[in-house]
Amino acid sequence: MIIVLKPGISRKQENTVVREIRRLGYRPHIMRGVARTVIGAIGDELTHQSLETLAMVFPLIVESVTPVQKRYKLISREAHPENSTIQVRGELVGGKKFQVMAGPCSVEGESQLLQTAVAVKAAGANILRGGAFKPRTSPYEFQGLGEKGLKLLAKARRETGLAIITELLSENHADLVAEYTDIIQIGARNAQNFQLLIAAARTGKPILLKRGLSMKIEEWLLAGEYVLAHENSNLMFCERGIRTFETYTRNTLDLSTIPIIKQESHCPIVIDPSQGTGRADLVMALCKGAVAMGADALLIEVHPNPAEAWSDGVQQLSLDMFARLMSELKPFIQAAGRET
Amino acid sequence: MIIVLKPGISRKQENTVVREIRRLGYRPHIMRGVARTVIGAIGDELTHQSLETLAMVFPLIVESVTPVQKRYKLISREAHPENSTIQVRGELVGGKKFQVMAGPCSVEGESQLLQTAVAVKAAGANILRGGAFKPRTSPYEFQGLGEKGLKLLAKARRETGLAIITELLSENHADLVAEYTDIIQIGARNAQNFQLLIAAARTGKPILLKRGLSMKIEEWLLAGEYVLAHENSNLMFCERGIRTFETYTRNTLDLSTIPIIKQESHCPIVIDPSQGTGRADLVMALCKGAVAMGADALLIEVHPNPAEAWSDGVQQLSLDMFARLMSELKPFIQAAGRET
Amino acid sequence: MIIVLKPGISRKQENTVVREIRRLGYRPHIMRGVARTVIGAIGDELTHQSLETLAMVFPLIVESVTPVQKRYKLISREAHPENSTIQVRGELVGGKKFQVMAGPCSVEGESQLLQTAVAVKAAGANILRGGAFKPRTSPYEFQGLGEKGLKLLAKARRETGLAIITELLSENHADLVAEYTDIIQIGARNAQNFQLLIAAARTGKPILLKRGLSMKIEEWLLAGEYVLAHENSNLMFCERGIRTFETYTRNTLDLSTIPIIKQESHCPIVIDPSQGTGRADLVMALCKGAVAMGADALLIEVHPNPAEAWSDGVQQLSLDMFARLMSELKPFIQAAGRET
Amino acid sequence: MIIVLKPGISRKQENTVVREIRRLGYRPHIMRGVARTVIGAIGDELTHQSLETLAMVFPLIVESVTPVQKRYKLISREAHPENSTIQVRGELVGGKKFQVMAGPCSVEGESQLLQTAVAVKAAGANILRGGAFKPRTSPYEFQGLGEKGLKLLAKARRETGLAIITELLSENHADLVAEYTDIIQIGARNAQNFQLLIAAARTGKPILLKRGLSMKIEEWLLAGEYVLAHENSNLMFCERGIRTFETYTRNTLDLSTIPIIKQESHCPIVIDPSQGTGRADLVMALCKGAVAMGADALLIEVHPNPAEAWSDGVQQLSLDMFARLMSELKPFIQAAGRET
Repeated sequence: MIIVLKPGISRKQENTVVREIRRLGYRPHIMRGVARTVIGAIGDELTHQSLETLAMVFPLIVESVTPVQKRYKLISREAHPENSTIQVRGELVGGKKFQVMAGPCSVEGESQLLQTAVAVKAAGANILRGGAFKPRTSPYEFQGLGEKGLKLLAKARRETGLAIITELLSENHADLVAEYTDIIQIGARNAQNFQLLIAAARTGKPILLKRGLSMKIEEWLLAGEYVLAHENSNLMFCERGIRTFETYTRNTLDLSTIPIIKQESHCPIVIDPSQGTGRADLVMALCKGAVAMGADALLIEVHPNPAEAWSDGVQQLSLDMFARLMSELKPFIQAAGRET
Repeated sequence: MIIVLKPGISRKQENTVVREIRRLGYRPHIMRGVARTVIGAIGDELTHQSLETLAMVFPLIVESVTPVQKRYKLISREAHPENSTIQVRGELVGGKKFQVMAGPCSVEGESQLLQTAVAVKAAGANILRGGAFKPRTSPYEFQGLGEKGLKLLAKARRETGLAIITELLSENHADLVAEYTDIIQIGARNAQNFQLLIAAARTGKPILLKRGLSMKIEEWLLAGEYVLAHENSNLMFCERGIRTFETYTRNTLDLSTIPIIKQESHCPIVIDPSQGTGRADLVMALCKGAVAMGADALLIEVHPNPAEAWSDGVQQLSLDMFARLMSELKPFIQAAGRET
Repeated sequence: MIIVLKPGISRKQENTVVREIRRLGYRPHIMRGVARTVIGAIGDELTHQSLETLAMVFPLIVESVTPVQKRYKLISREAHPENSTIQVRGELVGGKKFQVMAGPCSVEGESQLLQTAVAVKAAGANILRGGAFKPRTSPYEFQGLGEKGLKLLAKARRETGLAIITELLSENHADLVAEYTDIIQIGARNAQNFQLLIAAARTGKPILLKRGLSMKIEEWLLAGEYVLAHENSNLMFCERGIRTFETYTRNTLDLSTIPIIKQESHCPIVIDPSQGTGRADLVMALCKGAVAMGADALLIEVHPNPAEAWSDGVQQLSLDMFARLMSELKPFIQAAGRET
Repeated sequence: MIIVLKPGISRKQENTVVREIRRLGYRPHIMRGVARTVIGAIGDELTHQSLETLAMVFPLIVESVTPVQKRYKLISREAHPENSTIQVRGELVGGKKFQVMAGPCSVEGESQLLQTAVAVKAAGANILRGGAFKPRTSPYEFQGLGEKGLKLLAKARRETGLAIITELLSENHADLVAEYTDIIQIGARNAQNFQLLIAAARTGKPILLKRGLSMKIEEWLLAGEYVLAHENSNLMFCERGIRTFETYTRNTLDLSTIPIIKQESHCPIVIDPSQGTGRADLVMALCKGAVAMGADALLIEVHPNPAEAWSDGVQQLSLDMFARLMSELKPFIQAAGRET
């Protein structure tokens, strides 16, 4: 911890702070600068109590307190210098091959789902997405087919060989969802629902953790740390847009998370341009950007008839648009040194 | 729904859209303006499918689609023109009397809690706050005493007569927490954890719903609608600061929510300046503002020794500061036409 | 400057950084902690070159660089422990008396302005606001009456005795505007237009500096520092709302700036709830909050007929609403220990 | 304009609003829906007064008022369906060829500038950037060499043949800067300094308009409209990051502006990843993303010795890093169908 004192502090005041630092288990180290004195408090910040309260206890003496250590460990690149890869039914996420997860926002019925599954597979996707439990802003909106939706996803997997990703909304559904899915998705609204993260981690299934709407990258990494700390290392991060003042797009997709997650952690990074913009007409361009910047995979909403979708129709691609997208992405996947 | 067409659209294109509007169950009503044509689609937006996808299905024809109805019902001032009041162990929240909920961020032990309880009661608070289950950004931080903390809260209630408010973190703890507490608090990180909201609603206990860090007021009202739609009308909203670009304070406390919640809904509004600023030295001023603007209650973090607090020490008031706060608030409570 | 090294750095790498710190004019001071080494670089950060580039020059060695000194001087409470007060035609801003500046968003004509001036004076305001040069988002919107507007403001002053505040938009108008007005207003869009700030400072007139839409408090204080550094100490800050994700209000009025500006600087703080919310129906509540929290003055938009206002009608109070506001504010002004 | 009435409004109340709409010059058109009545007000919103005040004048009757027309004209894709291209000393911005503008944040001296100019030209850039007048957050930071800096830029142009782009800070410097530069840059802090935009437009020089830190896309387009409305059609937009809650990067670079600006307007779009992230180590990835998404050009900060830069060293690339960047970009430029 670095404790900066206010200007013009007496030796006696300084000593008061130094004593308190010692009492809280740190070894103080004093540096007298030109304008003010700085105290380095030496000790393990992860095991000792935080000193951040010093600024409140001695408001006339202490100006600021700053931690020195990073707060995450298992998730960090330092802990695991190589890229992690995740096995999903014979496919690898985070490896040489660029992966595409595609499918409807919500599972609405058998023909909708199967038609989509067949089409996205034909276009080159390997993983089928589809919501069975849906978090909806209003209690009056469609909340998903529940277990019936999970069964339809399993059926689509049997018929197409595609792996499955679907969202987990409730701790109480963790075992049920894990029974059907290949990847458990934790949505943006639940990104700091730590009980849910722990329940998901305990299933042992690969987990895709979306970034919360106003989550700082450090908080996102720490939420991921919850998963690894509960002995599940099959974690991938998924950027899906943050909330800003802009209203043209539903969210602001922060593509800079691609190099940042790669730098700070060893986990794969997936980009969701559908939620990220809320507009099907922007998905193509953002997919190209994500590929070029080194994303490991895309998560894309596709629907056989977006106009009749029961949720988020405005951001879902039609089957044709998706096929065209996959074809236009190819030169960028190649330029990025990845395989399709 | 209001559908705005692009400029220079032919009658034939217009008819395509009109047919689709009819097919989706609305009655179209065409207005030809100076610069462009607008179609009003008449029908109940809460029972029919949204038309927002039209802009994607006909991207060359439709410019924008805007809903007309408000999305919340039971929570709205229109549904219940009078102010709602909530009974909490003989005290009324939302009535003439201004209420103060105070206590430590986390329950740390018996003496810490009882000392605080006695002091906040002496200073004029009627409700004791204290976290037994704590949502922490990092898995390595103190997560609360759990059931032991609940028992200590119950003991503090027996000894002081103060009512209790504590946070619910997991659906699986809903019955346990409801057994001990008088008000269930839903925290900012779980404000759109709809499964938790439903579990809390079903206990029948009064619920304090904090605003999520990046929650629009409409979304907050809709989260409250989940509680009322599950037959629990004892809901109060609690503003605790939103996430903005400013870093001087931990969050930006949005006091304009006081008149807005009063205007849009019938539920009480509580202000939490401790979380709202993250700085004990700003709490006093923001409490005065909240009282003057018509808040029904305050939720304040108080600790007998903030420097040694196991969580969020930097924002907790000492017992002395709290007593001074309560005394300085009096003239403002009076000026606002409320009773202490 | 505090330089934190990455974990596992060798003595040799450490020395490389230490040499560079010396070369750039600082005295390095090494602290070897539990998890990593921290170097304090001692030297005056305001006269030496920043060391923040070290993290880029030695990306494998240096983790972070943090400045220790505050970047503002003349504006700081340390430089001037007493509150500053500003003389405006016999009235004092920042003194015991609570001040109200009121008037139309734009000067539209003689009768509109005079009618408003007479009414706001009768209700208790001492300073008349009115825009002659208007910054408008679109080039097709009304841009103000210009010099004709200034002449009308001067006429209103002659007839009512009210002091005048009006906005300066262009360096080239500084002398012209200063000739007519008693306070020069710098608008939010120009809050970091440093050339304009310097031109305004040089007129010697009192300056009201609005906070930019996305200005951090530190940046706002530094913009104020430009005024004081150009030898004009008659500066007041004006909070007028920041831009956030919320859309219910036009901006989010950050009332926590009242205690913060008082703590960090010696200048008066003025609150503008009209711009701050963009809604006349919220102005009353926010004014009460601002008074209770210790603001020195209010800046309020008032119009004899808001429905016909040439700009921002939706946020202007009618003359009746303003009179009622002034009357309802009185008990809060008293409770805050100020005089009307 | 679309006026939505509250539920349960009587015919008499409706008529009051209808009369006011007529009086303000619009033709009202009534649609009675299931839940509420909507009035379309037909008339040119660009020439008539806004009706947005109706919600304030009749707060018990009118719920909301929404404009129908877009507020920008000349800048819109509708006004000019083809892409605009801009001639800059024999180079075309917005054409088939992908353009790179590179150079130091500030012009610091002859050798620094010439060394950089020669290196960026060798690596493939065609336009040299360099600040002569610098907007600095603090009055105590380096403010640029002024006219001396302009002369050095001109010298670098003579010696290398590179075109020049530099920032204009003051209306009073418009002619001076135009005398030396090939493109006038308007910085983020001045993006809504309309007097400066008009002064820049009048020089007839190509203008690069950066997005303000908290500027909505609509406001950015309207600021651009100021330039076109003052008879200068050589406008390019430059995204340089917006201000969000995230602190890992200095700003959040919003790459979705690339397809959006292309869709809404006919002007070229330039991306500035240096300001956009504030970190040299992220520049490479973001450049690749920008190219893939269809940007017309990049604006990149390059310095022969970033550690000694007088401003923003932390975000400037070294000459080597820039050369490597240019080489790694090639396959992406090709994949995007552009030429180097």
